[in-house]
Amino acid sequence: MPITIDRAAAVVTRTGVLTDQTIQINGGRITAIRPADAAPRPADGTTVIDGRDRAVLAGWKNAHTHAAMTLLRGYGDDMLLQPWLQERIWPLEARLRPEDLYWGTRLAAIEMIRSGTVFANDMYFNLPEVWRAFEDSGMRAAVGLAMFDFHDAEQRRAIMEDVDRLLDRYAGSDGRVFATVAPHSIYTCSGELLQWAARRAEEAGVVFHIHMSETRQEVEDCETAHGMRPFHWLDSLGVLERVGARSVAAHGIWLDDTERRLVADAGMTVVHNPASNMKLASGVLDWAALRDAGVPMMLAPDGVASNNNLDMYDEMKLAALLQKVHTGDPTRLPAADALALAAGELSDAFATNGVGGHLAEGVPADVQIVSLAAPQMVPLHHLDSNLVYAANGSVVETVIVDGEIVMRDRQVADEAEVIRQARRCARELTTSA
Amino acid sequence: MPITIDRAAAVVTRTGVLTDQTIQINGGRITAIRPADAAPRPADGTTVIDGRDRAVLAGWKNAHTHAAMTLLRGYGDDMLLQPWLQERIWPLEARLRPEDLYWGTRLAAIEMIRSGTVFANDMYFNLPEVWRAFEDSGMRAAVGLAMFDFHDAEQRRAIMEDVDRLLDRYAGSDGRVFATVAPHSIYTCSGELLQWAARRAEEAGVVFHIHMSETRQEVEDCETAHGMRPFHWLDSLGVLERVGARSVAAHGIWLDDTERRLVADAGMTVVHNPASNMKLASGVLDWAALRDAGVPMMLAPDGVASNNNLDMYDEMKLAALLQKVHTGDPTRLPAADALALAAGELSDAFATNGVGGHLAEGVPADVQIVSLAAPQMVPLHHLDSNLVYAANGSVVETVIVDGEIVMRDRQVADEAEVIRQARRCARELTTSA
Repeated sequence: MPITIDRAAAVVTRTGVLTDQTIQINGGRITAIRPADAAPRPADGTTVIDGRDRAVLAGWKNAHTHAAMTLLRGYGDDMLLQPWLQERIWPLEARLRPEDLYWGTRLAAIEMIRSGTVFANDMYFNLPEVWRAFEDSGMRAAVGLAMFDFHDAEQRRAIMEDVDRLLDRYAGSDGRVFATVAPHSIYTCSGELLQWAARRAEEAGVVFHIHMSETRQEVEDCETAHGMRPFHWLDSLGVLERVGARSVAAHGIWLDDTERRLVADAGMTVVHNPASNMKLASGVLDWAALRDAGVPMMLAPDGVASNNNLDMYDEMKLAALLQKVHTGDPTRLPAADALALAAGELSDAFATNGVGGHLAEGVPADVQIVSLAAPQMVPLHHLDSNLVYAANGSVVETVIVDGEIVMRDRQVADEAEVIRQARRCARELTTSA
Repeated sequence: MPITIDRAAAVVTRTGVLTDQTIQINGGRITAIRPADAAPRPADGTTVIDGRDRAVLAGWKNAHTHAAMTLLRGYGDDMLLQPWLQERIWPLEARLRPEDLYWGTRLAAIEMIRSGTVFANDMYFNLPEVWRAFEDSGMRAAVGLAMFDFHDAEQRRAIMEDVDRLLDRYAGSDGRVFATVAPHSIYTCSGELLQWAARRAEEAGVVFHIHMSETRQEVEDCETAHGMRPFHWLDSLGVLERVGARSVAAHGIWLDDTERRLVADAGMTVVHNPASNMKLASGVLDWAALRDAGVPMMLAPDGVASNNNLDMYDEMKLAALLQKVHTGDPTRLPAADALALAAGELSDAFATNGVGGHLAEGVPADVQIVSLAAPQMVPLHHLDSNLVYAANGSVVETVIVDGEIVMRDRQVADEAEVIRQARRCARELTTSA
């Protein structure tokens, strides 16, 4: 069904903000962005959305998340990493039932849609349930089963079989939801498993998704075990060469210059997770050094257990503010760069899966429509600045994914039922504990 | 008119979260907090608010702001401090007309009310217009005329006359809006002016409000000029002794141990402004050292030109995350402490003006009612954690100040008109530039 966004006060494009435009959407794509007075009349049957006093921009791309962890929101906070994992997160994760994965992911999708996110790159358990939840949500999603073997051959064989089965079933999907290969990290995966994962990702033509260099400890342990830093270890295994630009490293905090060059040469995308990195005290990503090295970057909230929400507006503000205070330079990571990170403009990792970065004629219609009449958006001296520093997800009114409306005037289908079921699952998870 | 909040799912008190409570409000005060089944029937004419699936908590206290700067939101960002002030902020401030002050403050009040704030400690220009705007908003506010003399005797005499006139007119008000004496800072005020301000604050029985030790430069300049650090300079002038616990120092980043002891002994409140300190790269307040020294602390967003919103939920999250990443310790500034900062529980600076910190029978009825059904508040393992790490201001549904409803179900009186006027003022300010 065609959609027209009529007389949008502002449209954010890669080259600047256009005013008073009419946007036409059909067949999943933006078919026209034209000055409102020059736009053709919408055809019969077109859904017309009033664009006056609103801004239209690309939906956010959440490049690293564990969606179903919504059920663990606030279950453990303000703790040291190891007790947090061992006493709170892992025991609850061990009890996750298939329906928990489904409803937890549905809740995450609703939260993401309500804050303008159109795509999530997920890594978690029970891929079929997560897949089904994202399909039912209407969002785009890349879903990967978190792989680890803890250097145990038996576990390795089992996870390889799981991933083989899932790739047979899911790889090659060209819908909104698609598969990735997602080894958890270099400290939970053996070299053999990492090599196997890279080969399988390459063969299946899917993205390789991994946590990298999140903590200083991880780097030190890698140097002790392998005599080299984490990205050099990945490189020595032949992983970077195989996965190239279709690969995503979450966190990427503790890189040295040689690693940044390696990552840039491979074209691997580093995902910045400012809230999670701050909350777990993991460290501060060096945005300017990564940018100067030519590393593609994206932005993400991580899972809610270490955030505790999925609002990409929060991540933009945190990213920009953290770089400034950490470097002592208030010009660091200006608003326009934060927007480009959140929109996914700086990475092509998911481009072949239809995940675009910006608004233009011909691109997939993944769009958010933002109120300019919300008090924190008034006045409008600079839209970029208002979006990054003043807004939060509540300014988003309407979200379109793949040319279909998934939220209209802040109404998302099934919201009450998803909240009811997610609450039930969370209660059952913790009362059985 | 009496108000009953019926069957509140959660009520946050100083000693913990109570469940299924009914709260009664009359004559500006909380008259009862009782288990719902034991609460008396509301009298005829009572406004009954459904508390089911909602949390009731003390409204936030914004302890340092420049409200009318909403008109400058996003006018200058991502800039070094001096060009930002000299090229963007000061030229526009020099053109502020009385109506700009009024409508800018009204817009700020709406934004604050919508994010659960019941009280603001303001420092800006044209106190009568600011006063009138806060009165019309229904909020509590402490308003002070920003004083400076740049060590010029003529300017000093003029500002003293202004402040004398204002105190004659406004001091002694026991309403929701009340006056302060607000010397801008030690680098814009001479020692004579600071001494005069402290004496006038003491005589008039009002709070003394000043920016202190926001930048490292300010400390170095003070050492060069006076041979001592800023709080010692204030002390040597006799200021701390006069103003004591009825004084508020905004920012308070660059204190050494001797200054923290001095501030604690005086009982002066330090206000943490995490967003502003990060955005301007001013530095990181040492929360644990201030707490250990016994310094009373509050929280605030500063003005929107350096934030760029007035949402105290954002400030709580920023405060907690910044302490963690800066110290490398994820247990630093836990959620409960962030809530106490935002609620104003740790300072008595404004206590004689009816600004309370927490909910209890007998205290002023300054209350926010928060939805627990917003997706980012689900599930509810720990309310403190959800409020600090997952929520933003949009979860607030209803706000009561001094026993009167100022927002009900996210509707604030005059919102559309205030936005219309604030936009007009901002446009006229910048097009005349």
